[in-house]
Amino acid sequence: MVAEAEVTVGAGSDAGAAVRRRPGRPRDEEIDGQILQATLSIIDAGEDVTVGRVVDRSGVSRAALYRRWPSLTTLIAAALDVGRMVPPEYPDDQDLREALLEGMGLGDDGVAPSAPGFSEERFRQRIRLVMADRALQKAYWTSHVSRRRVPLINALRRGIERGELRADLDADACFDAIAGAAYYQIVVRGERLSDPGVAERLSAAIDVIWRGMVA
Amino acid sequence: MVAEAEVTVGAGSDAGAAVRRRPGRPRDEEIDGQILQATLSIIDAGEDVTVGRVVDRSGVSRAALYRRWPSLTTLIAAALDVGRMVPPEYPDDQDLREALLEGMGLGDDGVAPSAPGFSEERFRQRIRLVMADRALQKAYWTSHVSRRRVPLINALRRGIERGELRADLDADACFDAIAGAAYYQIVVRGERLSDPGVAERLSAAIDVIWRGMVA
Repeated sequence: MVAEAEVTVGAGSDAGAAVRRRPGRPRDEEIDGQILQATLSIIDAGEDVTVGRVVDRSGVSRAALYRRWPSLTTLIAAALDVGRMVPPEYPDDQDLREALLEGMGLGDDGVAPSAPGFSEERFRQRIRLVMADRALQKAYWTSHVSRRRVPLINALRRGIERGELRADLDADACFDAIAGAAYYQIVVRGERLSDPGVAERLSAAIDVIWRGMVA
Repeated sequence: MVAEAEVTVGAGSDAGAAVRRRPGRPRDEEIDGQILQATLSIIDAGEDVTVGRVVDRSGVSRAALYRRWPSLTTLIAAALDVGRMVPPEYPDDQDLREALLEGMGLGDDGVAPSAPGFSEERFRQRIRLVMADRALQKAYWTSHVSRRRVPLINALRRGIERGELRADLDADACFDAIAGAAYYQIVVRGERLSDPGVAERLSAAIDVIWRGMVA
């Protein structure tokens, strides 16, 4: 996670603090987890994340908090990504159309369930946050979102090599269009992924894009 | 505009204020314009819109501001849409692929220029605002964004009737995918529409979608 990587750099450069810390790594991770969970509980309650609230709910001192997360922005970004993961690579014989549908959370029943660790409230918080801070947005893109795209993009590229998809296909642009249709539901239409009509519209969008992709 | 419509309703229901107002409509519109322009100048400067700042920059009294915009949210929404417009209907012989490209701001030269009244900073502010307030988002969708979609959706429907596009095509889903690809550049990748690669990626996305749309 980008935010955590940044934080590690920040904390690591403070050699004095590292030396002072006892009893070492397991305790550090425990404190990190307490802070992140406290932050998430504040976000999920729809409240603004403030240092005071995080300190109150985590039971961690203000100094310990600042030592780990020099800014609330990086703390919130790390918290928003808790539980989300990069999906595994697809097998070579993967049905690509199915992978696109499943990648957008569309199962056989046409419903749009949540991806692991996905929370719509946290998603909305993340968008608010990154729209306010382009540097954070670029860092978050590089280290979080773009990494989650890799397995599906790789599967599409293998489909091009196999001759199943058009040779001149831009796999990234296809992904942007499919994921963009899903973002559009939440960001522009203001829908929840579980709202009536959303799964149908996403399926229809993927259907059109898939027709344009095949060789 | 939804915000202005809401405001008109709010102001109109305050019959006493309407009677007190002199010298009538032209003066009212002038004050509205001063307030909106002051709000835009604050937004464009990257500052938070506060009542104090709007009062300072517009020269309009606090009371006059509150009478017109009961909340900062509706004022900001109205300001963000200043200059934007619903495009005219397309002629019957419109080249649909060209309409899709132009609708996304992609001209013959492959560059992505701004649509009339479009400002990327204001766009980012709008997204932040609507992600924080789902009711505003739904209202903004109904009265602003969905209205801007109508001419292109109508042109696609006529393309279906003519047999140029697939009979079972979901025009709304196609629009979501195309517009979604554009939103994805700004909202997820953190790109500017003028950044290198964005026009190429959008063109490639529209190319794939278009191939999936034709009969």
